[in-house]
Amino acid sequence: MASIEYAKGLEGVIAAESSICRIDGQQGELYYRGYPISELARKTSFEEVVYLLLYGDLPKKNGYDEFHLKVRSQRDIHPQILEMIKAFPTDSHPMELLQSSIAYLNAYTHDKISDPPNPDCTSNLHQVTQLATVVAAYYRIHQGYEYVAPRKDLNFGANFLYMLRGEEPGELEGNIMDACFTLHAEHHFNASTFTARVVASTNSTCSSSISAAIGALYGSLHGGADEKVMNMVDAIGGPDLAEEWVNNALANKEKIMGMGHRVYRAKDPRSVIMEEFLETLSREKGDDTAYRILKLIEKVAGAHMKKKNKDVYPNVDFFSGAVYNLLGIPKILYTPIFAASRVAGWLAHIIEQRSDNRLYRPTAIYTGPEAKKVRALAERG
Amino acid sequence: MASIEYAKGLEGVIAAESSICRIDGQQGELYYRGYPISELARKTSFEEVVYLLLYGDLPKKNGYDEFHLKVRSQRDIHPQILEMIKAFPTDSHPMELLQSSIAYLNAYTHDKISDPPNPDCTSNLHQVTQLATVVAAYYRIHQGYEYVAPRKDLNFGANFLYMLRGEEPGELEGNIMDACFTLHAEHHFNASTFTARVVASTNSTCSSSISAAIGALYGSLHGGADEKVMNMVDAIGGPDLAEEWVNNALANKEKIMGMGHRVYRAKDPRSVIMEEFLETLSREKGDDTAYRILKLIEKVAGAHMKKKNKDVYPNVDFFSGAVYNLLGIPKILYTPIFAASRVAGWLAHIIEQRSDNRLYRPTAIYTGPEAKKVRALAERG
Repeated sequence: MASIEYAKGLEGVIAAESSICRIDGQQGELYYRGYPISELARKTSFEEVVYLLLYGDLPKKNGYDEFHLKVRSQRDIHPQILEMIKAFPTDSHPMELLQSSIAYLNAYTHDKISDPPNPDCTSNLHQVTQLATVVAAYYRIHQGYEYVAPRKDLNFGANFLYMLRGEEPGELEGNIMDACFTLHAEHHFNASTFTARVVASTNSTCSSSISAAIGALYGSLHGGADEKVMNMVDAIGGPDLAEEWVNNALANKEKIMGMGHRVYRAKDPRSVIMEEFLETLSREKGDDTAYRILKLIEKVAGAHMKKKNKDVYPNVDFFSGAVYNLLGIPKILYTPIFAASRVAGWLAHIIEQRSDNRLYRPTAIYTGPEAKKVRALAERG
Repeated sequence: MASIEYAKGLEGVIAAESSICRIDGQQGELYYRGYPISELARKTSFEEVVYLLLYGDLPKKNGYDEFHLKVRSQRDIHPQILEMIKAFPTDSHPMELLQSSIAYLNAYTHDKISDPPNPDCTSNLHQVTQLATVVAAYYRIHQGYEYVAPRKDLNFGANFLYMLRGEEPGELEGNIMDACFTLHAEHHFNASTFTARVVASTNSTCSSSISAAIGALYGSLHGGADEKVMNMVDAIGGPDLAEEWVNNALANKEKIMGMGHRVYRAKDPRSVIMEEFLETLSREKGDDTAYRILKLIEKVAGAHMKKKNKDVYPNVDFFSGAVYNLLGIPKILYTPIFAASRVAGWLAHIIEQRSDNRLYRPTAIYTGPEAKKVRALAERG
C-alpha cells in the first residue's frame, strides 16, 4: 500500500463531544458523569450507576423507587429467547448468542426506528436488564440445568449470581458482583462504544446499536483480556512457580496479560478496587492461590519495567478474572459479563449521539487499480 | 455543548487506505476494484462481482467452476434459522431478524475468532449466500406460505425471485434482479461499511462484523430511501398528478426522495442502469405508471433546481423501488435486499481491514461536569 499520512485506527482523532466519561490517565482516575469510579463502586449500586449514565446524575432518594421497580420488573426474558438459547450450538461462543438475541428481542418491544433526535431507548430497559439474564440462562441450559428466572428482591449482582447458581449468594458475594458490573459499565470511546455510536448515527434502534457493539466487544483485541489473565494464572499453577514463569516470559518478550493500559499512566483505579475484592474473597473462601500468583506477577513485571525506567501497573482485567473465578463463574462468561455491564455505557452514548446527531461517514485513500474494461467471463482466459 | 472545531460525523476524515471502491463524483462513475459499475452490471453476474470484491479481480473462465459451485451449494439455511424466522413477531422489521440471524448462524460454522491478520471469512460464504435466503424465507413464512429451498441451477437474482415466488422467474426478470444485487454490492465508506470495519478491527468474526453492519444499514438515514421513493409514487397516484404534487412539495420545501447524492455531482451511474431496467420491465409488464411518475418528478425537480443554477439527478434509490415493485417485491424487503447485496462489499472491507489492521479508537472532547463527590442514596434528598 502507498504510504500516506493519516491517523490509523483514528488514533487521537476527535469523533464527538461527550459528557459521559472522563479518564484522568495521569492521576489514575475514571469518572462517570463527574463521579470518581472509586467512590461509585463503593457507595452506589449498579442500578444507580445505570441511572447515572442514562440520565446524567445519580438518582435522588425521592422518586428512585419508580426506576428501581422498572429495571427489576424487566429482568425476565421472552420464551422465544429461551428457545434460541436452548438451540444454540454448544461449541459456539455465548457472545454470538448475545449479539443475536439482543437484536431479536427488540422485535418484542416497541423500540422501533424513529427519526426524531430522541430515540425511545429508555421506554423499556430490556437491554440493560436482560443481557445478564441471557448470560445466566445460557450457562444454566448449556450445563444441563433448568433456567432460573430472575428475582426482584436482589440487587443486580446478587440476582445474577442467583440465576447462575439457582441459590442465593452471600451478601458479600452479591455486593462484589454488583460492583464488578459498575466497574465495567463505561470507559469512553473504545471500539465497542464507538460502534454503538456509529450505528446509532444512522437512526437505527438502540437494540441494533447495542447488538453491533457486542460484536465489537467479542473481538480478541477488545474484550477477553481477563480470560487471558486467568489462563496465565492457570498455566503458572502455583505461587512458587510465578517468579520463574514471568522471568521466562519476559526473556522471551511475551506480553504479560492484564498489565499496562493505553490511557492510564498511573494505576487503573478499577484494578485497585478489584484487588481489594480479590483479597477479601480469597480470605473469605480460604483460597488465595490466584491472588498470590497475581501479586507476584505484578511485582516481577513491575520490577522488570522499572529497570527500563518505565512504570507498568495492573489494569482492570488483571484481578477481575480471579474475582469471577472465586465467585464460581467460568471463563467463557467473562466477556459476556463485560457486555452485560458495558451496555449501560453504550446506551448512554447512543442517547447522547442521537441528541446532536450527524451520520458517521469518513473517507479513505484509494490505493486500488486504475480504470479497467470488463470482458465477459467466456473471454477471460 | 461547547463549540469546538472538529469534523462532526468524521466528514472528510481519512479512516483507512482502501483498494476496493472508487467513486468519481464529477464524472458520475463508480468502480469496483477498477471496473466501472456500468459495465459490471451489464456483462457479469452478481456471483462474479462477489468474487471480484473478495479476491480483487474478476474470475477467469478456468477455475471459476469451483467458486461457482461453492457459493451455490451454500445457499440453504440451517433448520434452526428457519425456526427463528417462524417465531419472529409479525409486526417487527426483517432487518432485526437479519441482524440477529447472521450472528446466530455463525454458531454453525467454523468461522471463529482468530487473531492472525487473515480471518477465515471466505472458508464458507454463508454470509453472502444465505442472507438472501433468510429474506425470502421471512417473506414466504410471514405470508403464510411454505419455505422454498434455493436452487443451484439459477443465478443469484433468479434464485432469489424463485425462493420468493415458489416458481421460476422469466430470464429477463432473473437477470435484472441479479444486476440489482450487483448495483448495491459496494459503495465506499458509508456508515454500515465503516461499522463492519470498526468491528473487524477488534478481531471479531466476519459474521459479527456483518451483523453489526446490518444494524447500521437498518437506520433511516442509511438504508430505506427506495422505500420512501415508492411511498412518494404511491402518494402521487398517477402521472397526471405528478407535476402538481412535486410543485407543491417543493413550495413547501419538502425533500424529494431519491434525488441528489452527497458524492455524485453528475448522474449516479447506477440510476442510469436502474432506469433502463425500469423502462424495459414497464414495457414487458404493460404497466408504466411508476416509470412515468418518476420521469415527471425528475423533470420537475430538475427544472426547479436549474432555476437556482443547481443540478440535481436521480440516485440509485430513485428507480430501484419501482423495479422491485414490478418484480412483485413488497416494500418491506427493499432494505433487507440492500443488505443481501452489500454484504459482498462489507466482506471485502472486513478482509482488507484485517490485512493491515489497527483497532479503531478515536477520542472525544469532554463536555461533562467537573469532579463531584458521591453520597449514598439515603443522603441524596
